[in-house]
This record gives sequence, C-alpha cells and structure tokens, in this order.
Amino acid sequence: MSAIAVPSPVPSPSDDAEGIRKALQGWRADKEALVRILARRTAAQRSAIRRAYAFLFREPLLNSFRQRLSRQYCPVTVDFWKAIILWTMDPAERDANLVHGALRRRGDGDHLAVLVEVSCASDPDHLVAVRRAYRSLFGCSVEEDLASCPALQQPLRKMLVSLVSSYRYGGDRVDADVAKLEASQLSEAVRKKQPHHDEVVRILSTRSKPQLRATFRRYREDHGTDIVDDIDSRCSSQFARTLKSAVWCLTSPEKHFAEMIRESVVGLGTYEDMLTRVVVSRAEVDMEQIKEEYRARFKTTVTCDVVDDTSFGYKDILLALVGCEEE
Amino acid sequence: MSAIAVPSPVPSPSDDAEGIRKALQGWRADKEALVRILARRTAAQRSAIRRAYAFLFREPLLNSFRQRLSRQYCPVTVDFWKAIILWTMDPAERDANLVHGALRRRGDGDHLAVLVEVSCASDPDHLVAVRRAYRSLFGCSVEEDLASCPALQQPLRKMLVSLVSSYRYGGDRVDADVAKLEASQLSEAVRKKQPHHDEVVRILSTRSKPQLRATFRRYREDHGTDIVDDIDSRCSSQFARTLKSAVWCLTSPEKHFAEMIRESVVGLGTYEDMLTRVVVSRAEVDMEQIKEEYRARFKTTVTCDVVDDTSFGYKDILLALVGCEEE
Repeated sequence: MSAIAVPSPVPSPSDDAEGIRKALQGWRADKEALVRILARRTAAQRSAIRRAYAFLFREPLLNSFRQRLSRQYCPVTVDFWKAIILWTMDPAERDANLVHGALRRRGDGDHLAVLVEVSCASDPDHLVAVRRAYRSLFGCSVEEDLASCPALQQPLRKMLVSLVSSYRYGGDRVDADVAKLEASQLSEAVRKKQPHHDEVVRILSTRSKPQLRATFRRYREDHGTDIVDDIDSRCSSQFARTLKSAVWCLTSPEKHFAEMIRESVVGLGTYEDMLTRVVVSRAEVDMEQIKEEYRARFKTTVTCDVVDDTSFGYKDILLALVGCEEE
Repeated sequence: MSAIAVPSPVPSPSDDAEGIRKALQGWRADKEALVRILARRTAAQRSAIRRAYAFLFREPLLNSFRQRLSRQYCPVTVDFWKAIILWTMDPAERDANLVHGALRRRGDGDHLAVLVEVSCASDPDHLVAVRRAYRSLFGCSVEEDLASCPALQQPLRKMLVSLVSSYRYGGDRVDADVAKLEASQLSEAVRKKQPHHDEVVRILSTRSKPQLRATFRRYREDHGTDIVDDIDSRCSSQFARTLKSAVWCLTSPEKHFAEMIRESVVGLGTYEDMLTRVVVSRAEVDMEQIKEEYRARFKTTVTCDVVDDTSFGYKDILLALVGCEEE
C-alpha cells in the first residue's frame, strides 16, 4: 500500500515542471517546494513531469538535479539530492542503477541486500523491466555482470544469478503436494547445514510467491519452526544470511525492509544510502506494512527514528515518503 | 530475412476473416484458399485477422481450426491443420505451446531441440514474451516446469534453465579481452571433456550473441578448429549434443535449422512435427539463410525435399512458407 499523499485535484505536469524550475533557480534551491511537488506524485505522474520539464526547458530534469548535486559539499545536502534523484527516476531505471552500483561496490555487505531486494521483492514484470533498463543503460545484461562479478564467490553468485533471472508465475495457484515435498527438501538442506544445496536454489528461484508462502507455512506446520529461524540458528555463512533475506523479500518483504531501516539508523551515524534506497523504493509499494512491522518489532516508529537521525531537507523528503504515522 | 510473399495491396483484416470463414464452410475446407490467405500475411497481419474473425463471427479463429483438426483421421490432413494452427497463433504463444509440449514429451530427443531453439535462436525480447505467454497459458513459469522436469537429468537441466532464463544484451558492443579469455575457458573445458563445466554454462547463457560470435571466432583463431567440431569429436554425451545445438542457435541458427529440416525428411518417413515447427517458426525470421545453408550443405533444396516427402494441403502450406526457390 502506497504511503504518498497525492493532492486532489493534482496540478498539470507542466505546472509541476514550472514549479520545479522555479524552485531550482537562485543560489539555494527551494528544497521545500521540491518535496512538496515531487514527494506527492505517483510514478506515472513523475514520469509525466519529467517529459513536461524536458519539453519546456530543453533539458532532462534529472540532469538539472545532478548538476545541483555535483556542486554540494555538505553531506546532508548531498543526501537530499541523491534522494530526490532516486525518487524522480523511472522505477525500473532506478533499480537498474542501484544494481549496477551494488555490483561495482566491493566488500560492502549492503550490496548483497540490493541484489536480493531487486530480484525478490519486485513484482516479476517489474524485474523484467529492470533487466531491460539495465541492458539499455549499461550495454550488457544484469546476469552477465553478476555471473562474472569477482567480488561474489560461489555458491552465492550462482544463487543471485538464478534469482535475478527468474520470471515467476504471477497468479495465485498453489499446489499443496509441491508445498509438502519442497518443505521437506528445504528442511533437510537446512538441517544438514547445506543451505546452498541445488534444490534450495531451484525452489527459491523458480516457484511463485504464493507457492513459496504455502511451502514455508507447511515447513512451520511439519517442523514446528520457521525456516528463517532454522537458517539463523543452524547456518552462519554469508550465503545463509543472503538466503534469509531472499526468503523474507519473497514472502514478507516488510520484515526485510523494516530491518534495513532499523539497521541504517541504530548505533552511531546513519547509513543514508541504505535508508534512502529503502524509503524511496518502497514508498509506493508497501510502506504501510513496513511501518506496522517496524512498530511491532522495534517498539518505535519509522518517523521517530528518521526524525532523530536526519536533518533539514533530507529529513523532509524521507518523512513525506514515509507518510503519516501516529506516535 | 522473411520468405513470405505479402500481396500488395494487402486485403483488409475483415476481408481476410470473411475469406477464411468461407473457406471453412462445407464438408471439406478449402485448404487452398486458407493457404493463399494466411501464408501470405505477416505476424501482425495474422493478429489483425484473428481479432477481425473473433469480432465478426463471435468465435476465436483458432477454435474454428481446432474443431476441424479434431475431426480429422487422415495423417496428412492432421498435419495440415496442425501447421495452419501453429502459423496462425501469436508467435510468443506458439513458442510457449511448443515448449510446454516438449516438457511433457519424455524420452523424445527432439524435445531438447525445441527448448534450445526457443531459448537460443529467439531475439531476447521474444524470449521474454514467450515466458510471459507461458505464465498466462499454463499457470507457472517455464523455468519452474523445466527445473522440475523429471525427464531431464543434470547437468542438462541446469543448462537449459540458465538458457531459458537469459535476457541477453541486444546491442553490438563486443569486448575483445572477454572473447580471448572465454575462448580459452571454453577450449579448456572441451579439451578436458567437461562440456558441462560451470563456466561453459555461464558463458553460453549470459553473453550477448555478438560477444559469443567474437568468442567463437577467437576460439578458431587460437586453436585452429571450430568449437562445434571440437565438441563433436571430443564429447559424445546428450549434454554435448545439446551444447552444440545451443552454440549454433546462438550464433548461426541457419545451420541448426537446416540440419533439423534435413533430419525430418531423410530416411524412411518424415518427422512432420519437426518439419512443421522449423518451417513455421523460421519463415519470418531467417528462411532465406536456411535455404542457402541447406543448398550448400546437402546439395539439394528445401523445396525439393519438401515436395518429395509431403503431399496435398500440407505440402502447399509448407512450400508457401518456405518461399520461392530456384532449382
């Protein structure tokens, strides 16, 4: 469920484009106006604004934002512009850029989260759109870059290639016999501390999300524990941690994203790129569920944690995308 | 290059739909009229005819054909209707049906050819369209059915899943260093009689077609032999034969399809399903190149072999789709 508040009636794309142009004039951009306009428009409306802006001012809107970003030195302002750029992008291009960035960052644990999120927490058709965008932006396929990425070891690399190459059935049909069989295959692999078993990868990367939900439910019924808890308690490799994220992203993404937000704000400092990525990419998808999960799990609200850990315009765009939340 | 001869001016879709309806009336359908109309229309024109027919006669065109097919006992007439149905289908749905049929036929060597052809000889966007069609027709993904197909053994199954899941870069960009490195990786695997090596599957299932062409060229330059000849002479498993088809389908599909046509007509009897599939699926793609290859390799023409091995309406539709060919 989307958390963004679109005004009614919504201004025309040309009016919005002109509002944005005005906000960009002068030495200091009017960040408040930018948030007021952009954070309250759906992906389709932002796309229309990009077209109107390019038509009216003979310049891509994202270029205007990138120019601003390139002149910033203050970290908070940099974070603001990065968030505005990610939010204004076409969602498939945004995810293609995130994946490309993740494949170029080495040794950073968060890059695995990006790959799993885009592969598993997306609608199957969105994932195909991301792969198409990646091909046209970077001149090769995602799976090609992933399969030859030196920072990723086997069997992790193989699982990620399978996950990103999936085009899962999108309907609700579930086969109870398959759920029973595959729950026992998963259980055997996890209990033998072989989370990287071929069958685990096959099940996770080909079955539909409702089928996987049925399989994990069956796992709980037959073995008395949740598969994620079993992975957590029995396997400790990076592969197992990535598998756990994949299970969550596939069947209850709000759990994964609530954990990501929490991880980005707790302790000293804030992982802004992680926080921005999660808020921007889930604002129109399941932010309401993420906020509920966050409240139930961490006994505080996303809003409170964002207010505590961020400031100025960066805080404003995040709060607008997180949406209303009672204390 | 397409082999079909579209008349100019082309009749309207409604006129064609009415012509087809007329041809279907009476005890014996007018096969000649059906071939005259349908075999001379492009995929887009056939799609418009399907829509016009459904609008005018409140019945899907394919249903009318299937009803006719269900009443046939004479094998030649059955082959005619099967060919007409495959040709009239939307190309992505046709390929989805062919793959689905292949996954249900067990122990038949030809089913592997279908899977390789659809995965490797298609344009990457067509392959995505086939996967989409498969999901809506059969309620699960291609890779899901493939990965759990009991008739396919490992490592063959794994390679086929990777090939069908690919969404290759469609541009012309080629990296000479990658070609050099991967030519030597391929050569090492083939020389060690390990065609199923992970790196072979990775290269074949992720690289773009121009990149693979460069790699195989480099292979020839560095090792003095063609990779297909090396696979042929050093490896003899079903995996190796499938790998050879994949190499051909990816870089010179005319070689694979010429061989398929030849295989379907030589010796006693004709493999009609194979012949129909190849002629129907390549008529609008590369039939001209297939005919050239056939003539160079087998010292005869596709037309001659089709005329010798088929009869009546079935022969007519095949010849119309094969197109003009000098003796």
